[in-house]
Amino acid sequence: MPALKSLRDLFVNLLKDIYYAEKQILKALPKMAKKADSDELRQAFEHHFKETEGQVERLERVFALCDLKPSGKTCQAIKGIIEEAEEDIHEAADANVRDAGMIADAQAVEHYEIARYGTMVAWAKQLGMSDAARLLQQTLEQEHNADRTLTRLAEGQLNRQAA
Amino acid sequence: MPALKSLRDLFVNLLKDIYYAEKQILKALPKMAKKADSDELRQAFEHHFKETEGQVERLERVFALCDLKPSGKTCQAIKGIIEEAEEDIHEAADANVRDAGMIADAQAVEHYEIARYGTMVAWAKQLGMSDAARLLQQTLEQEHNADRTLTRLAEGQLNRQAA
Repeated sequence: MPALKSLRDLFVNLLKDIYYAEKQILKALPKMAKKADSDELRQAFEHHFKETEGQVERLERVFALCDLKPSGKTCQAIKGIIEEAEEDIHEAADANVRDAGMIADAQAVEHYEIARYGTMVAWAKQLGMSDAARLLQQTLEQEHNADRTLTRLAEGQLNRQAA
Repeated sequence: MPALKSLRDLFVNLLKDIYYAEKQILKALPKMAKKADSDELRQAFEHHFKETEGQVERLERVFALCDLKPSGKTCQAIKGIIEEAEEDIHEAADANVRDAGMIADAQAVEHYEIARYGTMVAWAKQLGMSDAARLLQQTLEQEHNADRTLTRLAEGQLNRQAA
């Protein structure tokens, strides 16, 4: 049954997808922080956990702007990325390898979000929802920053291992 | 059982993940091209299909540089993203909505690849595998370009709908 009849339907569909995804990320981040060997990496995960709480609140404001109650829709993509992260954590034989794997998997999460928030900002603007676009843009910038922090940590870790 | 004992293990693990992912993308792109209403979007999918064939060959050269036969490992992330794309295609009620959804989902695919190839380039350099790093960097640049093309098509489509 066709359920997506308009750009607004697509927007709401993706809003529910990313709302579900953020909730899954809120569950995953404390586990990753606990497994992190590097203090800097643990702090980065803890910092991003707090940011993610704010991102969930922003999504709830976007739902309100759409006159909808917040609700999630299973996001198979984020489930898959988190599943890969859990495998890597489980299979890593030492702390350096586990940290390197977790950084990489967290960057896959960030890039999923960058793609989705980028699309939602464009669609919100097209729909004339400038308040929603502004909220989503704030989160998009946080995800870009989180990705850059992870790149910096990865480079630092690789350089330490090389030393 | 810990199976990831070194950065090289992580690298090979991710190489198998992305090899599987590229093969799935090779299956998905012709279906997406067939469903595209916009000529430009169909051509973009067809162009990226040919690029992806080249990317698979490059990965096979990286396997050879590692003295390994090419083999894939189920990538739950790409399975999830493609599953979402199939749902969107199926549920879209008209051609414009379907094209907008497919562009968004293709950008999620590109961003997964950007994250993974970015990591693999860094790890290959760290492992002293400069030939592998160069091959992976070529693909990374193609994925960035593919993402930019999709953004341009999305903006064009949204502007047409607005006109």
